[in-house]
Amino acid sequence: MVAPFADAYSFAAGPARLPDAVLERARDELFRRGRDGASAVERPFADDAFRATLARARARLAGLLALPADYRILFLAGGAMQHFSLLPMNLLGPSRGAAYADSGYWSRRAIDEGHKRATVRVVARPPAGAPAAPDARGWDIPADAAYCHVTPNETADGVAWPALPDTGAVPLVADCTSCFLAAPLDVARFGLVYAGAQKNVGVAGVSIVIVREDLLERAPLDLPAPFSYAAQAAQDSCVNTPPTPAIHVAALVLDWIAESGGLAAMAAANAAKAARLYDFIDASGGFYAAPVRRDCRSNVNVRFHLADGFDEARFLAEAERHGLFHLRGHPRVGGLRASLYNAMPTAGVDALLGFMAEFMSRNG
Amino acid sequence: MVAPFADAYSFAAGPARLPDAVLERARDELFRRGRDGASAVERPFADDAFRATLARARARLAGLLALPADYRILFLAGGAMQHFSLLPMNLLGPSRGAAYADSGYWSRRAIDEGHKRATVRVVARPPAGAPAAPDARGWDIPADAAYCHVTPNETADGVAWPALPDTGAVPLVADCTSCFLAAPLDVARFGLVYAGAQKNVGVAGVSIVIVREDLLERAPLDLPAPFSYAAQAAQDSCVNTPPTPAIHVAALVLDWIAESGGLAAMAAANAAKAARLYDFIDASGGFYAAPVRRDCRSNVNVRFHLADGFDEARFLAEAERHGLFHLRGHPRVGGLRASLYNAMPTAGVDALLGFMAEFMSRNG
Repeated sequence: MVAPFADAYSFAAGPARLPDAVLERARDELFRRGRDGASAVERPFADDAFRATLARARARLAGLLALPADYRILFLAGGAMQHFSLLPMNLLGPSRGAAYADSGYWSRRAIDEGHKRATVRVVARPPAGAPAAPDARGWDIPADAAYCHVTPNETADGVAWPALPDTGAVPLVADCTSCFLAAPLDVARFGLVYAGAQKNVGVAGVSIVIVREDLLERAPLDLPAPFSYAAQAAQDSCVNTPPTPAIHVAALVLDWIAESGGLAAMAAANAAKAARLYDFIDASGGFYAAPVRRDCRSNVNVRFHLADGFDEARFLAEAERHGLFHLRGHPRVGGLRASLYNAMPTAGVDALLGFMAEFMSRNG
Repeated sequence: MVAPFADAYSFAAGPARLPDAVLERARDELFRRGRDGASAVERPFADDAFRATLARARARLAGLLALPADYRILFLAGGAMQHFSLLPMNLLGPSRGAAYADSGYWSRRAIDEGHKRATVRVVARPPAGAPAAPDARGWDIPADAAYCHVTPNETADGVAWPALPDTGAVPLVADCTSCFLAAPLDVARFGLVYAGAQKNVGVAGVSIVIVREDLLERAPLDLPAPFSYAAQAAQDSCVNTPPTPAIHVAALVLDWIAESGGLAAMAAANAAKAARLYDFIDASGGFYAAPVRRDCRSNVNVRFHLADGFDEARFLAEAERHGLFHLRGHPRVGGLRASLYNAMPTAGVDALLGFMAEFMSRNG
C-alpha cells in the first residue's frame, strides 16, 4: 500500500480520490524508467509506447460504453470548462443558435460562455421548490438550434437528472464531467458528451470528448488547430503534444473499471454508497437534511446540511480530526457535500456515517 | 535510484528526460497519500496545499528569471501550440495586424495559426545558405502591429538566434518552449514569453506564460474564460481546474534548477555538453556533419546527419542497442537530432559520443 494514512478520506468534488490500485500502478509506471531510458512521462508522444497507451485507453472506453461505431473519442488537454467555448466554436455551423437547459451552477457557467459565441435559448429551468432537475418534457427547442446542451449531474447542486429530453433532430450535448463512467451511458442518445478527467477518469489536465462523426463536419477550417474536434479526431488527439501523464493515468483507471466489473458494477456500488448516506440523513430526525428533491438526488455528489443553528465550520473541523476531508459544499451553493465517485470505498462512507452519528449524538 | 537502466538515455525533443532527483521526488509526492487521505494528484485545486505548490512554483520561477515586478506568471493547461491562437485572441486589441519572424518549422506553424486571426506581416526570413536564424537587424515592422513574434530556438531545425531584434514600441513575443530555463532570459526585453513544460519544466500538460501587465488590458471581455490571459491572471491561473499534477512536477523542476545553481549554471552546462558534441562532429572528417551555421547552432537541439551514402536507419537501430534512444530528426527536417536539455547529464553525452566514435570506426 502506498497510503500511510489508510483511514483518511477526501470527499472532494474533484480532483478526487483515485482507486488504490491505480495509485500504486501510476506510481510505478509513470516515474520508473524503462529500457529506453525514459519513464512514461519522459517519453515522446510519437513513441510507440505512448501510442499504445492512448489506443488502449480509447479501446477500453469504447468497450465500457459499448460505443457505436460512428462515434470518435478524443483526449484533449485541459478541463471540461474549455468545452463551454469549444462546443459553439466547433458545432454551430451555419446556425448561430443553440439551446441550453439551466439545471444549476455549472450549466449556468456553460450558458454564460455560450452567450459569448452563440444566440442562446434557455429551454428549461429548474422547477420551483426543492432543488431539482428541469422537467425533461415539453421543451421548445428552435428547429435550427445547432445543439441542445444539458448537464446530467450538477456537481455543485447535487442534482442528477432522472430523465433526459428527446431533442429530436437537434443533437443533444452533455457535460457529463461528474457522472461520467459512474454508470452506463447510452451514448447513442447524444451527439456529443464531454467530461473532465479529475472525477472518475483520473487526474486533472485532460478532458474526454465523445462525438458523433457527422458533427465533426461542422468545424470551421479556421479554428485553432488544437481546439478543432475535427482536426484532433483526424490526428488521433495528437495535433500537438497531448497531456501524456494524465492520459496514462486515465488508461489505468479505465483498466481498473473494466477489471472491477464495468459500468454496471460502478453504478450499483455508487447507488448503494449514496443510499446509505441519504438513508442515514433522512432518518436523522432533521439533524441532517438533504435538500435535493428525492428523485433528483445525485449518487456521486451528496449534498446535505445541518439543522438550523448548528455550526457547519465546527462539523468540518471535527470531521477533519476524524480523517474526513473536503466536505464543504460548493461556495456558491453552501452547506456540505460528500462526493462519492467510483474510487470511494464503502469503508469511506462508513467512516463518514460513523462520524456523523457520533457528532449527532453529542449535539442532537 | 528509480531507474533500473541507468545507462540508457532518451534524446527526445520533448516530452524529455526529467532530472533524476525530480523523478524520485515526483514518484513519492504525487502518488503518496497524506494525512488528508489525498495524494497531490487527488487534492482539490482550492486546497491550501496545492495553492502553496502553485505559489512556490511562481516564486521560484520569478526568482530564477529575476523577473521585473510588472510581469505576471501563468500556468495554463495545454501545450505551447494553443498560444499560436491565444496570442492574437488576447493581444491584438483594436489592431488586426501582427508581425512574425520566420526562422524555421515551429515559427511557420505559429504563422499559419496567426493567419487565421490576424493580418500577418512576415518581417524576417532565414538567410540563404546553411540553416540559420534571420538577421536581427533592419526589420520593417508596421507601427500598428500588436506584437512581433519570434522563436528564439527552433526545436526542429536546431537553430538558435544569436541576437534578438529591437522592436521598439511593438511588444516582442517569444515562443521559448525549447530554450526556456536552459539559460538566463532577460524578460524585460519581451512583452510576453511562453513555453510548453515538456522540455525543461517537467511533463506535458501545462504551459507557462509570462506577460507584462499592461498587455493584459488588451484582452476582449468575450474571450473564453480559460483562454483569457487577463482572467487567468486575475484568478491565479485557476479560472477552472488547473493541471495540478503537471504544475506539481514543474514546481519540483524549478526547485531543482535553483538548487543546482540557477540559470547561469544551466547555461554553462548546456553549452559545455553541446560543444563536446559539435566539436566531435566537426572533427569527424565529414563522417558526421552539423548543417546549422556555426553562430546559430542550438545548445539544446543538436542537429546532425551522416555523410551521404550512410544509412541513418542503421545508425538509429544500432544506437538503440547501445541504450541511446530518440535520435531521429524531426520528420519535416530529416537527419538526426540529439536534444540536450537541462536534465541530460554529461554521462549521456559521453555515451552518445562513445557510440558515434565506435560507429564511425566501423564504417568510416
